[in-house]
Amino acid sequence: MTHPVNVIESVKLDDENNTLVILDQTLLPNEKRFISLKTSEEIWDAIYQLKVRGAPAIGITAAYGIYLVTKQESAKDYDDLFMKFANYKAYLETSRPTAVNLSWALNRMERRFVAEKGATPDEVKAALKDEAQQIRDEDEAICEAIGEHALTLLEPGWGLLTHCNAGTIATAKYGTALAPMYLGQERDYHFKVFADETRPLLQGARLTAWELNQAGIDVTLICDNMASIVMQEGKIQAVLVGCDRVAANGDVANKIGTSAVAILAKHYGIPFYVCAPSSTIDMETATGREIEIELRSAKEVTETWYEAPMAPEDVKVYNPAFDVTDHELITAIVTEKGIVYPNYHENLAALFK
Amino acid sequence: MTHPVNVIESVKLDDENNTLVILDQTLLPNEKRFISLKTSEEIWDAIYQLKVRGAPAIGITAAYGIYLVTKQESAKDYDDLFMKFANYKAYLETSRPTAVNLSWALNRMERRFVAEKGATPDEVKAALKDEAQQIRDEDEAICEAIGEHALTLLEPGWGLLTHCNAGTIATAKYGTALAPMYLGQERDYHFKVFADETRPLLQGARLTAWELNQAGIDVTLICDNMASIVMQEGKIQAVLVGCDRVAANGDVANKIGTSAVAILAKHYGIPFYVCAPSSTIDMETATGREIEIELRSAKEVTETWYEAPMAPEDVKVYNPAFDVTDHELITAIVTEKGIVYPNYHENLAALFK
Repeated sequence: MTHPVNVIESVKLDDENNTLVILDQTLLPNEKRFISLKTSEEIWDAIYQLKVRGAPAIGITAAYGIYLVTKQESAKDYDDLFMKFANYKAYLETSRPTAVNLSWALNRMERRFVAEKGATPDEVKAALKDEAQQIRDEDEAICEAIGEHALTLLEPGWGLLTHCNAGTIATAKYGTALAPMYLGQERDYHFKVFADETRPLLQGARLTAWELNQAGIDVTLICDNMASIVMQEGKIQAVLVGCDRVAANGDVANKIGTSAVAILAKHYGIPFYVCAPSSTIDMETATGREIEIELRSAKEVTETWYEAPMAPEDVKVYNPAFDVTDHELITAIVTEKGIVYPNYHENLAALFK
Repeated sequence: MTHPVNVIESVKLDDENNTLVILDQTLLPNEKRFISLKTSEEIWDAIYQLKVRGAPAIGITAAYGIYLVTKQESAKDYDDLFMKFANYKAYLETSRPTAVNLSWALNRMERRFVAEKGATPDEVKAALKDEAQQIRDEDEAICEAIGEHALTLLEPGWGLLTHCNAGTIATAKYGTALAPMYLGQERDYHFKVFADETRPLLQGARLTAWELNQAGIDVTLICDNMASIVMQEGKIQAVLVGCDRVAANGDVANKIGTSAVAILAKHYGIPFYVCAPSSTIDMETATGREIEIELRSAKEVTETWYEAPMAPEDVKVYNPAFDVTDHELITAIVTEKGIVYPNYHENLAALFK
């Protein structure tokens, strides 16, 4: 038996009103406000200002967005509409140039447009809506499949630890590492989730604790340095994290601190699962050593303390945004295509055969 | 060859001016201000408001403080002066009742007073000054001895990681875990120190990074969850931490997150040293399991984010202030009496024979 749970969808199309409704994530956790985007400027601004964040959610916003603004253009023929579409695309691509999913989604919309060559403007508009809907639905299906696979690894009543935010608000629905928690909640699994706050930007405190709480899931916030004690005290039966990139040997790049959680889990004999859409598996990257680690501003570390700086003004800071978790620390990698166990080098490659 | 280094002394007696000069630690790291305490109310207030913190520093403040205020009393005889001393003692004890070193230092001052039975008020005052000076000097000697022993374990140029603040501003001088860093600085060891910020109260960011920076030591601040990556990248050759209590089997209670650092150090093959005055070794506590962990307010975790809360208002928080590091993770415990290696059960007991 399953029952409905309030799994927030952060990007929704309201086609009748020519509106895209998104959750303004910059206001979290202090305010839950959905905002309406109508113009290309509003869509650009929402992406630029991180009102929508998370690679899949950005892609979905761009896809729905370019459909909505193109739809409202009157055009005398296919080529006329394509000109207008291409202008919007060039404009929207500048909203966050480093977000791979942004250009991926806009390029996919363009390919669909091109595939409709010779159709009427109305037919093209219908095709664009269909493509955007597919992008969204595919993402939800991937997240749900990851969640279902991961759920087979877990038992009701377990304590689960997660790091950073790999949740519903970053995707179409369910998220990746949080997907089994939502699916478990629908089936009365009564998980007890512990969320690392995830310094320096506190995605765990601001986003993960918030979205799980909204869904009625039992979630407890801890500082990152408390992961050891909750494991030691027997509160954790499995760790679930998302990831940014999986190398061919199974090494995983994810939010800074992930490798520490994996080492602690191994020490305490707790399984450590990485939830990863197969799109994040990069067979061109042999090992994690090849992954360059982004270094970010010292101010993220030093100025998270009320109004006054919380560290000496002139102190050096090392602020890597990610780290690499050695494949030997990973119990399994959960993809939408199934659960991958070691030997990762062979078993990840088999996914793509 | 050694050369002087600016090792801050946070409590200093200015006997000529009847003044105790302390560093106001509540203003760190944004302002380095020494304040003058003259009256018993000012001394009480400085302890109560945590302007002075760290068990040894509190004891030294109380000892100097009760000497200073007693010294300025005119008394017709020993008993008259004792009445006045006893009143001050009862008053100062209330400034921070849970601080063991506060009552320890005041009781020791009282025992000295009693030992001077029959002396003139002036003789007693001189004895009180001598006792306070001894309390301070003994603490400095213990810290220096810990530093010298620890320094034999380290090599010039090493990267050292520390957690929380076991530094000079918490003691008479040098601190415990930071003592070898100061002594090394005097001898051009050129250590590269990494300081965990130490959530939730950020003693590493606010105090350790500040005091090492003041002394010209190469210190880099990191978030707690970055300890793994700096070890992985080969930046750390040894970990040094202080401690609150050592059990008879070598288990160590210290600031939350210490056990995680120890597990990471073991994983990466890095020695993990605990610096502990022998007064913190508690042979009555068989193992760390017997040590009760203080749980503190959720607000310490949730409200460290500018003016607005950084976590959902109604989220559950687990906020243990300490954790226990298993003795098997500890390479050695460095005391003022020497370096203690496993088997801790035997070798700690031998310290007290």
